[in-house]
Amino acid sequence: MAKRKIDPDDDVRNDRVILEMIQYTETDFLMHENPSLEELIRNVRPEYTSWINVDGLHDKALVAEIGTHFKMHPLLVDDILNDHQTKTEEFDEHLFFTMKMLHSISGSQIEYEQISFVLGKDYLLSFQEKEGDLFGTLRERIKKASGKTRSRKVDYLMYRLIDIIVDSYYTVLDSVGHRIEEIEEVVHKDTTGAEFDKLQVINKELIYLRKALYPLRDALKKMTKDESGFIDPSTIRYFRDVYDHVGHLIDSLDTYKDLTSGLMDIHINTMNSRMNEVMKVLAVISTIFMPLTFIVGIYGMNFDFMPEIHTHWGYPIVWITMILIVVGMITYFKYKKWF
Amino acid sequence: MAKRKIDPDDDVRNDRVILEMIQYTETDFLMHENPSLEELIRNVRPEYTSWINVDGLHDKALVAEIGTHFKMHPLLVDDILNDHQTKTEEFDEHLFFTMKMLHSISGSQIEYEQISFVLGKDYLLSFQEKEGDLFGTLRERIKKASGKTRSRKVDYLMYRLIDIIVDSYYTVLDSVGHRIEEIEEVVHKDTTGAEFDKLQVINKELIYLRKALYPLRDALKKMTKDESGFIDPSTIRYFRDVYDHVGHLIDSLDTYKDLTSGLMDIHINTMNSRMNEVMKVLAVISTIFMPLTFIVGIYGMNFDFMPEIHTHWGYPIVWITMILIVVGMITYFKYKKWF
Amino acid sequence: MAKRKIDPDDDVRNDRVILEMIQYTETDFLMHENPSLEELIRNVRPEYTSWINVDGLHDKALVAEIGTHFKMHPLLVDDILNDHQTKTEEFDEHLFFTMKMLHSISGSQIEYEQISFVLGKDYLLSFQEKEGDLFGTLRERIKKASGKTRSRKVDYLMYRLIDIIVDSYYTVLDSVGHRIEEIEEVVHKDTTGAEFDKLQVINKELIYLRKALYPLRDALKKMTKDESGFIDPSTIRYFRDVYDHVGHLIDSLDTYKDLTSGLMDIHINTMNSRMNEVMKVLAVISTIFMPLTFIVGIYGMNFDFMPEIHTHWGYPIVWITMILIVVGMITYFKYKKWF
Amino acid sequence: MAKRKIDPDDDVRNDRVILEMIQYTETDFLMHENPSLEELIRNVRPEYTSWINVDGLHDKALVAEIGTHFKMHPLLVDDILNDHQTKTEEFDEHLFFTMKMLHSISGSQIEYEQISFVLGKDYLLSFQEKEGDLFGTLRERIKKASGKTRSRKVDYLMYRLIDIIVDSYYTVLDSVGHRIEEIEEVVHKDTTGAEFDKLQVINKELIYLRKALYPLRDALKKMTKDESGFIDPSTIRYFRDVYDHVGHLIDSLDTYKDLTSGLMDIHINTMNSRMNEVMKVLAVISTIFMPLTFIVGIYGMNFDFMPEIHTHWGYPIVWITMILIVVGMITYFKYKKWF
Amino acid sequence: MAKRKIDPDDDVRNDRVILEMIQYTETDFLMHENPSLEELIRNVRPEYTSWINVDGLHDKALVAEIGTHFKMHPLLVDDILNDHQTKTEEFDEHLFFTMKMLHSISGSQIEYEQISFVLGKDYLLSFQEKEGDLFGTLRERIKKASGKTRSRKVDYLMYRLIDIIVDSYYTVLDSVGHRIEEIEEVVHKDTTGAEFDKLQVINKELIYLRKALYPLRDALKKMTKDESGFIDPSTIRYFRDVYDHVGHLIDSLDTYKDLTSGLMDIHINTMNSRMNEVMKVLAVISTIFMPLTFIVGIYGMNFDFMPEIHTHWGYPIVWITMILIVVGMITYFKYKKWF
Repeated sequence: MAKRKIDPDDDVRNDRVILEMIQYTETDFLMHENPSLEELIRNVRPEYTSWINVDGLHDKALVAEIGTHFKMHPLLVDDILNDHQTKTEEFDEHLFFTMKMLHSISGSQIEYEQISFVLGKDYLLSFQEKEGDLFGTLRERIKKASGKTRSRKVDYLMYRLIDIIVDSYYTVLDSVGHRIEEIEEVVHKDTTGAEFDKLQVINKELIYLRKALYPLRDALKKMTKDESGFIDPSTIRYFRDVYDHVGHLIDSLDTYKDLTSGLMDIHINTMNSRMNEVMKVLAVISTIFMPLTFIVGIYGMNFDFMPEIHTHWGYPIVWITMILIVVGMITYFKYKKWF
Repeated sequence: MAKRKIDPDDDVRNDRVILEMIQYTETDFLMHENPSLEELIRNVRPEYTSWINVDGLHDKALVAEIGTHFKMHPLLVDDILNDHQTKTEEFDEHLFFTMKMLHSISGSQIEYEQISFVLGKDYLLSFQEKEGDLFGTLRERIKKASGKTRSRKVDYLMYRLIDIIVDSYYTVLDSVGHRIEEIEEVVHKDTTGAEFDKLQVINKELIYLRKALYPLRDALKKMTKDESGFIDPSTIRYFRDVYDHVGHLIDSLDTYKDLTSGLMDIHINTMNSRMNEVMKVLAVISTIFMPLTFIVGIYGMNFDFMPEIHTHWGYPIVWITMILIVVGMITYFKYKKWF
Repeated sequence: MAKRKIDPDDDVRNDRVILEMIQYTETDFLMHENPSLEELIRNVRPEYTSWINVDGLHDKALVAEIGTHFKMHPLLVDDILNDHQTKTEEFDEHLFFTMKMLHSISGSQIEYEQISFVLGKDYLLSFQEKEGDLFGTLRERIKKASGKTRSRKVDYLMYRLIDIIVDSYYTVLDSVGHRIEEIEEVVHKDTTGAEFDKLQVINKELIYLRKALYPLRDALKKMTKDESGFIDPSTIRYFRDVYDHVGHLIDSLDTYKDLTSGLMDIHINTMNSRMNEVMKVLAVISTIFMPLTFIVGIYGMNFDFMPEIHTHWGYPIVWITMILIVVGMITYFKYKKWF
Repeated sequence: MAKRKIDPDDDVRNDRVILEMIQYTETDFLMHENPSLEELIRNVRPEYTSWINVDGLHDKALVAEIGTHFKMHPLLVDDILNDHQTKTEEFDEHLFFTMKMLHSISGSQIEYEQISFVLGKDYLLSFQEKEGDLFGTLRERIKKASGKTRSRKVDYLMYRLIDIIVDSYYTVLDSVGHRIEEIEEVVHKDTTGAEFDKLQVINKELIYLRKALYPLRDALKKMTKDESGFIDPSTIRYFRDVYDHVGHLIDSLDTYKDLTSGLMDIHINTMNSRMNEVMKVLAVISTIFMPLTFIVGIYGMNFDFMPEIHTHWGYPIVWITMILIVVGMITYFKYKKWF
Repeated sequence: MAKRKIDPDDDVRNDRVILEMIQYTETDFLMHENPSLEELIRNVRPEYTSWINVDGLHDKALVAEIGTHFKMHPLLVDDILNDHQTKTEEFDEHLFFTMKMLHSISGSQIEYEQISFVLGKDYLLSFQEKEGDLFGTLRERIKKASGKTRSRKVDYLMYRLIDIIVDSYYTVLDSVGHRIEEIEEVVHKDTTGAEFDKLQVINKELIYLRKALYPLRDALKKMTKDESGFIDPSTIRYFRDVYDHVGHLIDSLDTYKDLTSGLMDIHINTMNSRMNEVMKVLAVISTIFMPLTFIVGIYGMNFDFMPEIHTHWGYPIVWITMILIVVGMITYFKYKKWF
């Protein structure tokens, strides 16, 4: 959660920062792969809707340079480089939006990556911590001019990007839902506590998802009430739609939280029932055999004077007594519903 | 909870989409069963209040066509097809309302089905996921012109449909209430944990009901503050009435939640009490028989020199000692209130 | 919690619906016991403040007739007959207020009865589910013209009725308070779990009281902000006073809830302490006697070659060994603070 | 928590109601100890700031008379006599403020006493349930004209009185804090559950303090937004200061609540750890001695044909076997980390 | 949490109060180390931005004198000396801001120190309880004119100081995060309860951090809505940035709280699982050896008439029986999944 500090040693990493620029109008499409900063700046023109994507944030100097060119407020540059929040903020020249993107979902391990958007009049800058994103399909669609993106402005582009990220949250929550259902079916039979551990893993994921989604809802709410003029009134409805989706995600999250905690209760109850059962077995065995062992102990004593020992019926009578005791005990336990 | 994506393969299902149109004025009544889309469109006229019901949403193309004819916003069509939320949304040409309907209640298993309403100036479209609904009686009443529906406009019709769905929630919550009462009477005697499992089932149902009811209240609240003009001021009071009912349902839900959790506490306490009882039996038996077994063990030893063994009173004295021990132990346990 | 539906079969009950009308001015007092509906309607005149009380709601037709005469909105009649909510609602001709009355408090069993008030310009209608109410003393005071009621209008009468009902909640909460104090004194000594059960009963009562009081506060709040004109500004202060009392009741309710849950924690802790004690006794007894029994077992073996057995000091040495073991064990347990 | 009802029998108590009046201007000071009502009324004059204090509320008639003289609203008199709430209420002629005062703190037992203030244009009435209060020092300071009170109006006097009461809450919360710290140090070693009981006592005190402080904050908030004109704008800042202090008290209260509940968790965990330890001792002892006792039992049997018994090495071999078993068991338990 | 009272005996402490004044313009820099009060007051001039820092608050008279010179409101001086809250308050001549500073972080022990800021038109006073602070680097930067501070006014200086303190909270929360991760890895293996204790320590720290951060957010919120004129509109964005950071800290805090409580649940579950395991071992051992010991006890009896004893196969048959019992038991336990 750290607000990472600017540390010159960080730059030693030999990962390159990757720049990419897509420019389009309804009729035209240009793609600059990995241009130099100068190239990039030279090409941004109001005739085009320009989307500039920056992968990797370790080259602070580069980001600062971009900031200077696009007249970003120092706090804005600082937020892009150091912040791990989710928020919307208006600046004189830009609308700033930063959120958490689910970077990769290998197995059930979720990794978060910070993504920041800087929306200007006719350009959109996006800053990602690592290479690789969820926008491949969209790039294709823009290129092929399929879908509505080409016919609309840069604010709609930002909506599309956010929408894609929010959709990936649906995928994660769905997977959580399926895992909960799986656990639900076996939680009664779990003797090892393995299911409890799985529930705790889910619990932890839900905690992190909540940390991502709640501020996201607030940030999007701010966007739907935008008065900065960077978002066209006709696009605001689309942002409201994403906002509604996030609200729905949060509802599901809360439901999953409740289900998880219900399953934990079931697990604990199951454990306790089993414990009860074990204790009953112990108590039954002890209650039956302790008196019997005592009785046979008596007639193992070596007293000279023990008249019973010398009678012919002594041994059978002891047996009969013991059998009666066993029968009595079992009847008692049946009555007490111990088994 | 997934936002289902438009997937052409879905259309391969051979379920048919069923269209149905009811049209009425105060004096007139028309019913088109299973018309073709063209027929349907041709017949919608401002003279009539038209209710068009669509059962099944797998034919995306059909829904899209309907959307185009009625000038629906692309987001609206998208929401009908893909969304599982509960919300009210105003569009220029329509008021959109979507909620969860309790589709069928077999045994204690609740199934939810999404239902969407699109309210226009003089027509109401309803979209359901599956065939079969709760509106049979209302259709009859409209046909026979009993009740007020025929004499009022299409907004009142929508109120009636929502009211019927909300009433079905009452039925479900009532059944939950009865099941809680049943469990309440036997929870003290439950030794198997079966009642705890039933409580968990109820708990889960309440979680889902809450997920349906809370957003429903918000959506209806929005309707009672309607400024779109699609709902006549005189009808708003009716929507406020449904809104109040949902508020009441939520109160009951919370009460049942508290009762359920109270019963779980009782169950756990009962389990613990029983455990305590079992442990006490074990401790009492051990405390009584361990010393006795030790004593008889002593005189089972084979030492050459054990003078007590050869006295005449040795054996009776051991018996008396042991009886005193038993009496002493029992007195002690009585004093300690162990039984 | 059901919204009871109008069901003609209900009317078969042979309970009669009891009507009663009290009319007064500052100088005059009239009482109509059990008048017919016609009589009643004929006598309602603006010169008098009229209070019409209806006991029993099973004669739906009668209530509907009354509704028609007093120009009640269909939803209002419906709410009187079918609703179990607590709310304030303004209609054009009336102010409607419905709440839960504590009908009878036999033992510690609370029964709730719905009471509805319909406040017109110069008349007040009250509808109760069952015969018998808390207003006997007030009727006497009105008759004898003691107190301020006779000198004020019908809105003040409604305040007085609500105030009396709210006072009965105080009585109930006081009794809850006393029972909590009683349990507090014995909860430490409870071995049977009986006190826990009592706490659960209180818990359940508090759940139901909360269900009655929270919406009541909201409903009264609405009344203190009345803009309908049915409540005179000078009377609003009185309603604010009842509103404050309900707020105070809710504070007490929450306090009792916390106290109850604190006592449950104490109970559980007591149970666990006792369990611990039982387990310790078991462990101490086992730890002392198991080694001893083992030792005497050794010298009960029948090996031909066991030299110790034939020495003169064997037997006393075994005794000394065993005594040392016992002393050692007890020292150890004392050191471990097990008793 | 009862709203005490006016009951004439209450007056039989022979406690006297004690009146006291202090009057001052910047230059003048008058004190009337125990005047008659007539005396008191005769002396109240606008030239002086008058503080009238009433100790004891059982003489309802007296309070009513005072009320009549100072033109109090009937509801106000009723609230002074019967209410146990904390609230601010504006009346035409007065500002009414009532709160809970910590009457005496003997040991760790807190007693609450209701105190009511009626603020007029140039007089302040204070009503206390019992004799004895926290204002002795202030009376001295007014008399000696030290501090600012003499130079300011009656609204400042009320602030000073409330401030003194709020300060006494600080003392109580501090003592709670110290007790929590004390418990914190020994909770790990507690075997008797005594610390848990102390925590529960603290818990209960915090519940009552919360019941006193939350409404106090609301009541003071109302005072800081005063529009009645009874509080001078320059004094409002002082009330805001008390309001902030109460907010701070509530923060501390919540913190102590969390700390207390954390300590309870530690206690429960300690109890469980100890239980675990006891159970392990029991299991270890049983696991070691049960097999041994069984083995020696075997060779205590009296079968004619038991060849081992007659060999010379039988007895030593049994011993060696048993020693190996003990060593094996202990190794196993060490491996399992049981001790 | 005490509101410390002014107590003259406090002054006997021989700690000195340390004054320090830094004055700067964009071009000029002056530093007065440990000036006398007179010196200090003489040098404050509107041409310079003056930062006066007071370390140590025990010399109440000195603080009062400073207050008088800078025309502070008596309540403000009182708050500096006695208050342990976090708040923003506007006075006519000043903006007052007081918060908790993390004074020193030795090991994992957090110490809080109160710091108060009094912002005037061209000077900033800061009051700290103890010597030593976090502002060393900033002092250097101002001196060297690096960073923006020198080019801006006194409101920006206050922002910088607050920002530095808030950054130190990040450090603490990060350390909490690391400790949680460490515990997470070993909590499953903990048998001593040591990890549980560590979690409780973290829990306690989070409680105190929350007590510091929640009011801090409110106080900063107030600052971002400043209407007093002491904060320049261009600086408000910076305060909003700190405000956002505190919001982020609170989110992290809540997340850590949830994680901690999840880990406690895991710990308790682990403990219970282990308990279960212990009990099973005990039950298995008892169930196997108790019947066996009973059987060998039988043939240890000394009855004259016990025919089995004299047969040749008696002894082997007893052995076979016992082996069958052991095998049967183990099969049964395997089937029951006890090990």
